[in-house]
Amino acid sequence: ELFVLTYGALVAQLCKDYEKDEDVNTCLDRMGYGIGIRLIDDFLAHSAVKKCRSYSETADMIAQVAFKMYLGVTPSVSCSSAAGNEFSLILDKNPLVDFVEELPAERASLCYCNLLCGVIRGALEMVHLAAEVTFLQDRLKGDAVTEIGITFLRKAED
Amino acid sequence: ELFVLTYGALVAQLCKDYEKDEDVNTCLDRMGYGIGIRLIDDFLAHSAVKKCRSYSETADMIAQVAFKMYLGVTPSVSCSSAAGNEFSLILDKNPLVDFVEELPAERASLCYCNLLCGVIRGALEMVHLAAEVTFLQDRLKGDAVTEIGITFLRKAED
Repeated sequence: ELFVLTYGALVAQLCKDYEKDEDVNTCLDRMGYGIGIRLIDDFLAHSAVKKCRSYSETADMIAQVAFKMYLGVTPSVSCSSAAGNEFSLILDKNPLVDFVEELPAERASLCYCNLLCGVIRGALEMVHLAAEVTFLQDRLKGDAVTEIGITFLRKAED
Repeated sequence: ELFVLTYGALVAQLCKDYEKDEDVNTCLDRMGYGIGIRLIDDFLAHSAVKKCRSYSETADMIAQVAFKMYLGVTPSVSCSSAAGNEFSLILDKNPLVDFVEELPAERASLCYCNLLCGVIRGALEMVHLAAEVTFLQDRLKGDAVTEIGITFLRKAED
């Protein structure tokens, strides 16, 4: 709907501004970061969640509460490292791409939804969790599912 | 929330791209138009509204159903011409500017929410109603309310 189409207009504008997919991806991530560090207040105010006591609880919270609240979908979560600091959010359905059929050939490296990675990264940083967040699989690129990888680096301060 | 902040990122990007406020306004309006001509299908599918039989009914529908559905607010509507083709949507609260305190001095002519005008214009065109849609007042510019003016030009085809 309106948000999804507006997001599409944003990506289209950035594709006009930057020739290289990598630059668009970086820009989306940076914008997302700026959004995440502001969105966290809204999230904490409206979700009434308690403090998470583990990376695993944090990942579940992102999937079950935050994604549900802002995108209306609930990704499944899996832990993908023995160390317990790497998680995957797996989306069968990604509402942000509802109006996108496929990426044009000349934009094959575009991470269309990269804003989301930045949002998660920014929001986590505000609760003192440093993380790397990237797309590992993307249905827009022909993968079977869309998968966002979150790697917790360390507690930024503790 | 996420939509409002993403919209803010879009406007900020356009302000980076275009020096003149007028160019940003035009670009937002054009983007909105592109969104409106796609959004109308979603609106008709989800709103179950019947065909409007007058401009007045159409204006009410935009305010009471469309604004409610996509922005969560219901503007009040007033007819502002004896000919019955000019209407004002008056917003006491505009959720799109929740995170904007005021326009910077060098962006005094920016119509921050101009995307909405384009959306309305595009959506109306798809139901064969030509209209001019512009901001008449804007709380961001110090006005008491935010007012969107809709002037129906003629039935595009009848």
